Amino acid sequence: MSQNQALEKFLDLFEKRSLAHLATVMPDGSPQVTPVWVDYDGQHILINTARGRQKDRNMIRNPAVAMSIVDPDDPYRYVQIRGRVVEAVETGADLHIDKLTFKYTGRASYDWRSTGEVRVIYKIEPLHVSD
Amino acid sequence: MSQNQALEKFLDLFEKRSLAHLATVMPDGSPQVTPVWVDYDGQHILINTARGRQKDRNMIRNPAVAMSIVDPDDPYRYVQIRGRVVEAVETGADLHIDKLTFKYTGRASYDWRSTGEVRVIYKIEPLHVSD
Repeated sequence: MSQNQALEKFLDLFEKRSLAHLATVMPDGSPQVTPVWVDYDGQHILINTARGRQKDRNMIRNPAVAMSIVDPDDPYRYVQIRGRVVEAVETGADLHIDKLTFKYTGRASYDWRSTGEVRVIYKIEPLHVSD
Repeated sequence: MSQNQALEKFLDLFEKRSLAHLATVMPDGSPQVTPVWVDYDGQHILINTARGRQKDRNMIRNPAVAMSIVDPDDPYRYVQIRGRVVEAVETGADLHIDKLTFKYTGRASYDWRSTGEVRVIYKIEPLHVSD
């Protein structure tokens, strides 16, 4: 079974306002975890962040990432994913953060952008999915 | 300001049924994240797990860990902690998992123990606390 097939029973988590807790690797090899909005295109997990943030710097340096996502309606249902960044794209990232804003808040657009902020979508290939 | 002082404004998170998303490091250096019950004794973050689980094996090998904890009452309030395991103790770990069971479920004792399961408390020193 592919890892994408393994994710199929968790598709509802990506429709809900579930937070992913994303781990990246610091320069010294230690982990860092941060709660993030999350999306899934059927092939890759998509994380939208801003250039210059710690997780952006970590994922540029080291593509190894992991996350856990808990069902907001059931704290004992969750999925754990280990994966690797396969692409980082800025094109479309502004539109994508607006889409996530709508999903997570109901607002039409992302209003927390700082001056000069450059958004980027990290595409993550799931290598190991478990519940 | 010490990292314990930095944690003081998040003490309520440890009183609530907040899940910590704990990252540990796999043998190949990639991260792993799993949702866990969490406790804090004023000095160390306490994670109670069972011997032989992936996070147990990872923390034995590599003391570098991190976690994020979201306020169950406010998804935009959270704390991120990077730290290191300073001690792992089995003495008292059965009593401690019962205490956590009561906090998180209201039940008097942990009923999901498998045969021969050995519980262990990991004591984590917070090295970097941020919100």
